[in-house]
Amino acid sequence: MLEARLPQASILKKIVESVKDLVSQANFDCSESGISFQAMDESNIALSSFLLRADGFDPYRCDRNLSLGIKFSTLSKILKCAGNDDVVIIKYEDDDDILSLVFKDSKNERISEFSIKLLDIDSEYLSIPEQEFECKVSMSSSEFSRICRDLMTIGSSVVIDATKEGVKFSSTGDEGNGSVLLKQSGSIDDDGKRSVGTTVQMTEPVSLELSLKYLNNFTKASPLSDSVSINMSNGIPVLFQFDVGDIGYIRYFLAPQIKDDE
Amino acid sequence: MLEARLPQASILKKIVESVKDLVSQANFDCSESGISFQAMDESNIALSSFLLRADGFDPYRCDRNLSLGIKFSTLSKILKCAGNDDVVIIKYEDDDDILSLVFKDSKNERISEFSIKLLDIDSEYLSIPEQEFECKVSMSSSEFSRICRDLMTIGSSVVIDATKEGVKFSSTGDEGNGSVLLKQSGSIDDDGKRSVGTTVQMTEPVSLELSLKYLNNFTKASPLSDSVSINMSNGIPVLFQFDVGDIGYIRYFLAPQIKDDE
Amino acid sequence: MLEARLPQASILKKIVESVKDLVSQANFDCSESGISFQAMDESNIALSSFLLRADGFDPYRCDRNLSLGIKFSTLSKILKCAGNDDVVIIKYEDDDDILSLVFKDSKNERISEFSIKLLDIDSEYLSIPEQEFECKVSMSSSEFSRICRDLMTIGSSVVIDATKEGVKFSSTGDEGNGSVLLKQSGSIDDDGKRSVGTTVQMTEPVSLELSLKYLNNFTKASPLSDSVSINMSNGIPVLFQFDVGDIGYIRYFLAPQIKDDE
Repeated sequence: MLEARLPQASILKKIVESVKDLVSQANFDCSESGISFQAMDESNIALSSFLLRADGFDPYRCDRNLSLGIKFSTLSKILKCAGNDDVVIIKYEDDDDILSLVFKDSKNERISEFSIKLLDIDSEYLSIPEQEFECKVSMSSSEFSRICRDLMTIGSSVVIDATKEGVKFSSTGDEGNGSVLLKQSGSIDDDGKRSVGTTVQMTEPVSLELSLKYLNNFTKASPLSDSVSINMSNGIPVLFQFDVGDIGYIRYFLAPQIKDDE
Repeated sequence: MLEARLPQASILKKIVESVKDLVSQANFDCSESGISFQAMDESNIALSSFLLRADGFDPYRCDRNLSLGIKFSTLSKILKCAGNDDVVIIKYEDDDDILSLVFKDSKNERISEFSIKLLDIDSEYLSIPEQEFECKVSMSSSEFSRICRDLMTIGSSVVIDATKEGVKFSSTGDEGNGSVLLKQSGSIDDDGKRSVGTTVQMTEPVSLELSLKYLNNFTKASPLSDSVSINMSNGIPVLFQFDVGDIGYIRYFLAPQIKDDE
Repeated sequence: MLEARLPQASILKKIVESVKDLVSQANFDCSESGISFQAMDESNIALSSFLLRADGFDPYRCDRNLSLGIKFSTLSKILKCAGNDDVVIIKYEDDDDILSLVFKDSKNERISEFSIKLLDIDSEYLSIPEQEFECKVSMSSSEFSRICRDLMTIGSSVVIDATKEGVKFSSTGDEGNGSVLLKQSGSIDDDGKRSVGTTVQMTEPVSLELSLKYLNNFTKASPLSDSVSINMSNGIPVLFQFDVGDIGYIRYFLAPQIKDDE
């Protein structure tokens, strides 16, 4: 049996929006420690995963490990029926073939109950070892979205160059070329307003070419977090991580392309 | 001859928007007492009607009963040319084949004149007796819109159950089920803000199944009024009424479906 | 060599948006005095031109006359990558086949560089003599946009009648007719807010019929200026001018249609 109460529906809404265009369905793995899922996109190129830790729920109860097959488009439609500030209660009764979602408004005057039919999904769990990366860029997630969207108008891929000066995103296309350089910066604006700065921590300079189509999909996680961390080592998949407060994260892994000039 | 001056164009704009997707054309019946119309949708399932009483106009003059055939798409296009706060003057000269609309801004510096060709429309006027209903629900019109839109993602029809506890809207679909319960409530929020509460007055509990496609059309009247009243008796058409201030109303009648489980 | 620094990208963005649907490509003529272009639309009916004077840039350097062939859709895509308040630096090295655009944010922490491939465009420069017009209407550019958009729902052309009373725009269509009269007015609202009034200066009353399709294209220059001046003489092309602050302008010339009733 699973019963998990999330104080704010908006978190779950944003998580589902950030993966539903990459992955059509996946098993939600529920255990004592929380709820997570992991899935490759249909082209088998990008891996998406998320984790919401048990302590992000109040209360959280999961008696035994469960694997619940969910179609994202259905879950997305149902979550659109929840108000952002509604409480969400996720319920599963052992051996049932549905998952229940209850949404309650703050005054407890509006109570919605939805059930989703569960699917039998064959999936392999890839165990991904925690890695040391040669370079870690942390930057504003909305800036990351803007750059990916802008460069998509120039070309189909982007080269990310991280150096001590900052991080540079470059694309080439038939009608012209373009690049955006973000210098390392603090997180406070001149006028005292807080903004998310750009930091680069590195042991090696890194230069990788990535598909903009996938990056533009990853940017759908931007509403979850002000910042994104881009973790890179030459020649291995890049990890993009968006933290969900301090209760979880959403991660995307994408293998670099072989660069044209190599 | 008809000459009717409406102080605010927005009312007429909203009325036309609320019926133009249900009814393509109709006769506007003008008399001493005001302007009204009544029409079935093309599938002959839903009846729409509205009334604007003469005292909502200033001045209002109508010498004899008129029946003016109007195409809603044309009227809608022309009303889009009026500012929300413009004065509207509706004019018809006896035996003319056009209806005139004049829009004036508050400074009388911008004066628009439009004429619409009148149509000859064959129509039967259904006299609908005022009825006592077993159950009358009054609720926020925007909440009604939201529920109809949300449940449309689940199924094609909704069951409305009214009890002393409140009113419940339920839909079933291939991928899951959903319901929204609104408890009876006052009209004042905890934080002192005024909001439209939900009230149920009833002599009998009522349970009716209705087409969501039509309900979603009716919700286009929501901008006219903060609240909607849903008047139901088992087995007869439901009346949805949106009041236009205290000068008129828009009404929709829809026959319930035979429920699947009956 | 050209190097021109424009303090605000938004001006260039708006100029390009205001012509890109009329003209697909054109030569930008750069000289000591500034940057300009002039081009007919593809149907050879409307002439668009703009001028940005050298003193609108800081600094501005252009060693010799240049004619740089630009595709507007590419330039538009690249300018969408500039922030409205970014500084833009336009650069061209003699005999190069690209034009460079550099965008810098106010903190100089975000620096974008784009290059556009230049095109070889055959074009004839029409020298248009400065003319005296019989009638000059000055009016709010947003009001002009609204009238052109509204009347487009009635008919395909508009008759502009300028008299001492004001200016009247009229259209006729299959389902009805419409007209908007703007009376001459001051530029201060009753409540003290500044607004753009309507003025008519004339030596002769003028009545001209113009294609609404073109006028609706011209209104895309409205974001550049609060007011538009419409310069008319019976029987010759009308000049619509939107000023770009005091550093330039965008102009459209459109020949009147032969009126149906003549």
